Amino acid sequence: MQFTSRQIADLVSGQLLGNPDVVVQRLAKIEEAGVGTISFISNPKYLHHLQSTEASVLIVSNHIELNGHKVPAVVVVDDPYSAFSKLLGLFNQATFTETGIEQPSFVANSAQLGQEVYVGAFAYIGENVVLGDGAKIMQQVYLGKNVKIGPGSILHPGVRVLHDCEIGAGCVIHANVVIGSDGFGFAPQKEGHYEKIAQNGKVIIEDNVEIGANCAIDRATMGATYIRKGVKLDNLVHIAHNVEVGENTVIAAQTGVSGSTRIDKQCVIAGQVGFAGHVYVAPGSQIGGQTGVTRSLNEPGQKWNGTPVMKYMDSQRTSNLIRKLPDFEKRILQLEKFFNELNPTTPHND
Amino acid sequence: MQFTSRQIADLVSGQLLGNPDVVVQRLAKIEEAGVGTISFISNPKYLHHLQSTEASVLIVSNHIELNGHKVPAVVVVDDPYSAFSKLLGLFNQATFTETGIEQPSFVANSAQLGQEVYVGAFAYIGENVVLGDGAKIMQQVYLGKNVKIGPGSILHPGVRVLHDCEIGAGCVIHANVVIGSDGFGFAPQKEGHYEKIAQNGKVIIEDNVEIGANCAIDRATMGATYIRKGVKLDNLVHIAHNVEVGENTVIAAQTGVSGSTRIDKQCVIAGQVGFAGHVYVAPGSQIGGQTGVTRSLNEPGQKWNGTPVMKYMDSQRTSNLIRKLPDFEKRILQLEKFFNELNPTTPHND
Amino acid sequence: MQFTSRQIADLVSGQLLGNPDVVVQRLAKIEEAGVGTISFISNPKYLHHLQSTEASVLIVSNHIELNGHKVPAVVVVDDPYSAFSKLLGLFNQATFTETGIEQPSFVANSAQLGQEVYVGAFAYIGENVVLGDGAKIMQQVYLGKNVKIGPGSILHPGVRVLHDCEIGAGCVIHANVVIGSDGFGFAPQKEGHYEKIAQNGKVIIEDNVEIGANCAIDRATMGATYIRKGVKLDNLVHIAHNVEVGENTVIAAQTGVSGSTRIDKQCVIAGQVGFAGHVYVAPGSQIGGQTGVTRSLNEPGQKWNGTPVMKYMDSQRTSNLIRKLPDFEKRILQLEKFFNELNPTTPHND
Repeated sequence: MQFTSRQIADLVSGQLLGNPDVVVQRLAKIEEAGVGTISFISNPKYLHHLQSTEASVLIVSNHIELNGHKVPAVVVVDDPYSAFSKLLGLFNQATFTETGIEQPSFVANSAQLGQEVYVGAFAYIGENVVLGDGAKIMQQVYLGKNVKIGPGSILHPGVRVLHDCEIGAGCVIHANVVIGSDGFGFAPQKEGHYEKIAQNGKVIIEDNVEIGANCAIDRATMGATYIRKGVKLDNLVHIAHNVEVGENTVIAAQTGVSGSTRIDKQCVIAGQVGFAGHVYVAPGSQIGGQTGVTRSLNEPGQKWNGTPVMKYMDSQRTSNLIRKLPDFEKRILQLEKFFNELNPTTPHND
Repeated sequence: MQFTSRQIADLVSGQLLGNPDVVVQRLAKIEEAGVGTISFISNPKYLHHLQSTEASVLIVSNHIELNGHKVPAVVVVDDPYSAFSKLLGLFNQATFTETGIEQPSFVANSAQLGQEVYVGAFAYIGENVVLGDGAKIMQQVYLGKNVKIGPGSILHPGVRVLHDCEIGAGCVIHANVVIGSDGFGFAPQKEGHYEKIAQNGKVIIEDNVEIGANCAIDRATMGATYIRKGVKLDNLVHIAHNVEVGENTVIAAQTGVSGSTRIDKQCVIAGQVGFAGHVYVAPGSQIGGQTGVTRSLNEPGQKWNGTPVMKYMDSQRTSNLIRKLPDFEKRILQLEKFFNELNPTTPHND
Repeated sequence: MQFTSRQIADLVSGQLLGNPDVVVQRLAKIEEAGVGTISFISNPKYLHHLQSTEASVLIVSNHIELNGHKVPAVVVVDDPYSAFSKLLGLFNQATFTETGIEQPSFVANSAQLGQEVYVGAFAYIGENVVLGDGAKIMQQVYLGKNVKIGPGSILHPGVRVLHDCEIGAGCVIHANVVIGSDGFGFAPQKEGHYEKIAQNGKVIIEDNVEIGANCAIDRATMGATYIRKGVKLDNLVHIAHNVEVGENTVIAAQTGVSGSTRIDKQCVIAGQVGFAGHVYVAPGSQIGGQTGVTRSLNEPGQKWNGTPVMKYMDSQRTSNLIRKLPDFEKRILQLEKFFNELNPTTPHND
């Protein structure tokens, strides 16, 4: 895949300065850009690269002064970052263009495949599975019976979607994700062992959801575990049974959400956060890394941190005070010493 | 799968009120129950659903007064939750009934397969593997050489059991679990790099163990890593080499156990807990979420929490006091001020 | 695989006492050693096993007095642990000796396979993949297009290496690892949803790297995510896009490293540590379990711990002081009481 500087200027609606016929094959960060690459400068702190870069094409902001560079073609835009992000997408479109059924694979007779779908080798499409138009089921994926995959979704190699689960349109499910494993439900018995509580529900993943590599999302005991539209999960996230993750909520890597917890929409949750079961998190909550959410967080738009969880400002304040504990100890001792000098007969703490 | 209200009353040994011929196909939570579903009310706080629910059959406690509802059939029992849990299991039995060898799959000539086993497509059964009667090896599972799987165990798609490891009877291993990866053992060298210490042991998983999706359980350096009977592990748990997890111990998601640590029986361990290596945890210990177990916990039946770990009551107390640190600081300042007023010549802390 | 006591003495350059023709088939810890095993005693605290062990061959230090044992053959060396570690490696060599292409598997016509490679059943070798001599691609592995695997590396079952990623020589990648999943990059939109930022870079893993089961390593947005030579990652580790992990750095299980963070060489990082994005960690840093690295750690060779991160010594001190908070509270109250007695008219804190 390659573009000329003229094509790029058109694609990003920018003003072209220099040679319109320079060809680029790759995108690169400014500090790594060589011949045949296109790069960008948005942040003024990278401006010093302008003199030395070997990029063939450079996208820059219209706020930047272009003195003394040797870049063959420059494209001037309002927002270089957005323009470059658009190019990243264009260059990436060529990555997964295959359609058809690669062999050997397994497609049940009762499965319904839409137009222009792709099924990779060693993929397993179970009974009554429905694949929407343009769905891409990559190599070694497993779809259990009655699974539904919406149009345009891509399931990367090794994804397992167990029976009855549903994935919407435009989703990206990364490699080795498990969707629809049993919820963790066991009834303790008098003799000390546990009896399994059957998990008969499913997982419903709505449109435009992205799920990172090696995540595990459990099916509900009854009903469904919900991942609402626009949710983005990073790698190695755990979602327990009967959880609901609200629209456009973003969760970073290695966070775990316990059973029946409901996280409302538009939340931003950092990595390695743990949520207790049966709690509620209000819309727009922001939660810092490694926080332990042991109770419901009912204030919309609030920032939280710490274990046990507290408001972000309180968490900052107590963190600072914890660092002062050696000083506090010294000061208490000093006060006690003064006291004992004042009142030699007063009982004193030792 | 469907049942009549009469059949259900018989299955749970309950008293049937109303129409004995109502047919149900699904189980549902009371707040989601519609026509054709069976639901239950155990907790009085859900009693208000009685008037409005469209459930076809309802299981209720004999403590509940049944005024003014329109449910076609009601089944009265002592313990609605247990009765319903039994029905969950019955409805679920139909999920994996396949037997036989689905093609294409790979079964080594030297493998020994019991009666009524199932091997799914793209599964790999290595040399000298032994499958007990009724074992279900789902699609895309890998069993290395000499692996033993006990009767009635089910290995969900993508499970990897590496050479020599053993799984008992009645186990449930969820999708993409890895059993028998090498322990993390390296000998530091003078030049700064590490030499691998070969991991020649195995993993032994006893009967009735359940292991959640995407867990990783390492083989011992020598001997075995043990998961004793009745253990339940949630998703994304890490068990290092030479660990022993005792009988009926339950571990929630994303917890990690470092090498040679021994957790005794009947413990209840929450999510995201970290165990240091070579520590011991006494029977019946209960450990809160995100705890850092940096030392042995030798008191049976004790509750623990926090990083570094302390008794649960101490952890609650210190958590509360940490929140009071701003107040402590203010009070120390106040005391110092009084002192300086009393003794203007005394050296004071600033 | 079996050895005689004579062969073992030669292999570890030790002095043989007793029968040179004793045959051993297995290695064992001293407390589990039976007939047909070889074991070792390095630590004097295990010396009491000398009288009772049924090991057929025993490796001991030349510092140990050998009174009254009944072991048929003893091999005396300077460093029993190193000698035994060498034997562990020898016994393990027999584990993966297969070469050739097992069927059914998928190898693209354009793939280049070196000498003596192994490709297991249900493995997928994509377009333009290059496999170095002796590389072992185990069952059900996926290699996307343009992937390069260096000589002698082994990829265990279910590993996914997505397009364009590169793995060096002598690497060990454990089961179900994902290499080259998309980085977690999304641009927030005014309407509340997020647009995906295409991830066009790759992952470069240098020589002699070991990666534990179920790890996930994301490709860079542009350029590469780097795992430098000699790095060892334990199970379930998350490495985000554009991260660099420096030479010979060791990271224990369930640690997560956020985007663009650079960990320098020779660091030792414990389990469940979380790194914020865009931070730097100096060479030789040692970081305790569950630490939250919220900022750059610029002092080489320093020890760190806690959330938020502090120097290890400070972390120990504050942990101890946190335990003393109940005592501090009591002492402050006591001081206040004295004060109020001294100055009944002074305003007092309540």
